[in-house]
Amino acid sequence: MSQRPRVVIVGAGFGGLAAAKALRHLDVDVTVVERTNYHLFQPLLYQVASGLLDPSEIAHPVRSCLRRVSNARVVMAEVRAVDLEARRVDTTAGALGYEHLVVATGSVTAGPGDPPSERQVLGLKHLEDALRLRAHLLACFEEAAHTTDAKARRRLCSVAVVGAGPTGVEYSGAVSELIRHVLPKDFPEIDFADSSVVLIEAGEEALAGFAPRLGRAAARSLRRKGVRLLLGQPVHGVSDCGVRLRGGSVEAATVVWTAGVRSTAASLLPADTLDRRGRVQVTSALCLPGHPEVFAIGDIAAAEERGPAAAMVAPVAIQGGQHVARVIEARLQGRPDPEFRYRDKGTMATIGRGSAVAQIGPVRLSGFVAWVLWLLVHLLYLVGFRSRTIALASWAWNFFFYDRPVRLIIDRPGDGG
Amino acid sequence: MSQRPRVVIVGAGFGGLAAAKALRHLDVDVTVVERTNYHLFQPLLYQVASGLLDPSEIAHPVRSCLRRVSNARVVMAEVRAVDLEARRVDTTAGALGYEHLVVATGSVTAGPGDPPSERQVLGLKHLEDALRLRAHLLACFEEAAHTTDAKARRRLCSVAVVGAGPTGVEYSGAVSELIRHVLPKDFPEIDFADSSVVLIEAGEEALAGFAPRLGRAAARSLRRKGVRLLLGQPVHGVSDCGVRLRGGSVEAATVVWTAGVRSTAASLLPADTLDRRGRVQVTSALCLPGHPEVFAIGDIAAAEERGPAAAMVAPVAIQGGQHVARVIEARLQGRPDPEFRYRDKGTMATIGRGSAVAQIGPVRLSGFVAWVLWLLVHLLYLVGFRSRTIALASWAWNFFFYDRPVRLIIDRPGDGG
Repeated sequence: MSQRPRVVIVGAGFGGLAAAKALRHLDVDVTVVERTNYHLFQPLLYQVASGLLDPSEIAHPVRSCLRRVSNARVVMAEVRAVDLEARRVDTTAGALGYEHLVVATGSVTAGPGDPPSERQVLGLKHLEDALRLRAHLLACFEEAAHTTDAKARRRLCSVAVVGAGPTGVEYSGAVSELIRHVLPKDFPEIDFADSSVVLIEAGEEALAGFAPRLGRAAARSLRRKGVRLLLGQPVHGVSDCGVRLRGGSVEAATVVWTAGVRSTAASLLPADTLDRRGRVQVTSALCLPGHPEVFAIGDIAAAEERGPAAAMVAPVAIQGGQHVARVIEARLQGRPDPEFRYRDKGTMATIGRGSAVAQIGPVRLSGFVAWVLWLLVHLLYLVGFRSRTIALASWAWNFFFYDRPVRLIIDRPGDGG
Repeated sequence: MSQRPRVVIVGAGFGGLAAAKALRHLDVDVTVVERTNYHLFQPLLYQVASGLLDPSEIAHPVRSCLRRVSNARVVMAEVRAVDLEARRVDTTAGALGYEHLVVATGSVTAGPGDPPSERQVLGLKHLEDALRLRAHLLACFEEAAHTTDAKARRRLCSVAVVGAGPTGVEYSGAVSELIRHVLPKDFPEIDFADSSVVLIEAGEEALAGFAPRLGRAAARSLRRKGVRLLLGQPVHGVSDCGVRLRGGSVEAATVVWTAGVRSTAASLLPADTLDRRGRVQVTSALCLPGHPEVFAIGDIAAAEERGPAAAMVAPVAIQGGQHVARVIEARLQGRPDPEFRYRDKGTMATIGRGSAVAQIGPVRLSGFVAWVLWLLVHLLYLVGFRSRTIALASWAWNFFFYDRPVRLIIDRPGDGG
């Protein structure tokens, strides 16, 4: 039986992985529990969904990521419950006791109010979502290729993306390029004047988290790429035919929901630790009030007053994970808990081939320069050398040949396709 | 309404695709009907199953393959029935009339006698099979990593491959390398002395279709790679625990069945056109007797007396497809049907990293030289330039670093994992 403090980390996303890596030099035993066997580079998920990258280019086995972290072990399992009093995590692979617990389970797609079925709305949060979306979209065009009903054909060739945050903007730009530049070569029998990509946003601007100038630049760039923008249009419902808005509807066989995500904290932590949006109200050391041995980081943690530190983005999760290791180190040395300070390194979003927006401190960039910067930053962060080289090759291929290498329907959606 | 003869090709495997391409210069309208939206380079499927290649490296959209064939169109659909009298194919995308029909639907895995459930036996014939096998194998090792029962752990770390034909030999060599050289880095908690790969063959030799000397060379090479060979051992049954043999059993959580394939002709063509093994007895022009307008090529066609021309391998299908175009051309020109003559270009099988066997006419090669030849030939045949470069990069990576790039469990098998 080990005498070293046991740290259990639930989730191997950006936050959990950063925590495990930062704990490498401490005298603790780390166990990372993750539902899947891979770490997902979620910011590029939309590129799998739009047929540009293969899953293995953005997903990396957790065990490989932590191969050089000798005090960490990995358990592929689902967490059933957390017992805060007994300090124990119950998983499908058995119970794990802990001295420190790090909850980093992230968020999931939160669909529209009256829950439509999965085949009506597609999320873009998990690897399975991206593969399902890719297969669904391609199957719609296959069906359109031999459909004689003109109205049905238009609907099959139309994509509605709900939510003009970074994911919605990036996916609608990428899918519009796919539909305008790549699919016409594969489907000579389809009149692509029938196709459309509509980006629907309840707010008055695209990319609400960015400077207004950049939101407008993104909107211009999207329109140039053939995306129709509907701003100030809350969605009233989704049906088999498409999206219902206040003053009408958008007919589309493919509806992608990027308008909301929900913290997964509620399934693991007691309700009294959560705010009204389901996020954990953490202390300045990122702990649960009353439970200093339990940390919550990334998308599930909230600190409303902190501004950018409360955003559901990878840098917040990574810095949170690194902070947890600093707190545990301080406690092992008998020092007081350090406070979490988020260092905002800026944020960016890409709008397809050769166009992006970026804000880094006071600097605002848009267009091609921002896109090159985006490419460099994302390559830098992509886990694993092989992923990096192959992803770069795919992007170069796409840039020069306007082609998409990955257009496979491996699992046809059962009914929806 | 087109006045040109309509050629319907069912199946976009090696045979169907070769026929469509060879018909490019004729004055006919070609429709290729395929269940999936891709052409699968089946000889490398075992590399997806053993985590070396990504699906998109061996699967290519049918529409891309035929992009430059201006008289061909593609319909993604399943064929429900063929009406030979009405000369009509009924598909899930509607009915297709034809003047010439080419049936090239290939073969499927034919499991052991008393049909075990899918979770007991995994095939290696479709892309889904390979992904399911990869996920199942990796999930078994994940489970073994936290299982305390020693007997269960040994079973989870053991793979039984049934059938020592090319697929069985190639997969067992590849999976043994994966288990011996790659997984130990990922699973430090597993004692790999518990793991095993067993190749079970009813006949007395591996690679029965090859020269006996090459079969023995393959067996030696497999043993060096840590594969246990059980020759002359017909399988009596498969259970959740493994494979039952005459004199005992092999405990394995992963059982891969490569010992038999079955022609798919029976689902489309009348029973009186089939031999007792379900293959179509074709004429020397590769037509159905009594139906010269219907061709059967590839795995579904038989001509027992022809020897190598009856083998279920890609070259037979490709040459069959090309022959169909020659026959149709002759008929358009009022000439008699040419006879099919198979040109045996040799056959090869690889046994993992740096070892293969090949026989080309009177030449017999084994070891590293044969492997380099195998690499060159397969790269040459791989469809699409990108697949070629990326597959080569993956192979080089594997050869120099002894690593497997693709170890993702994307869809965990529901119960079997």
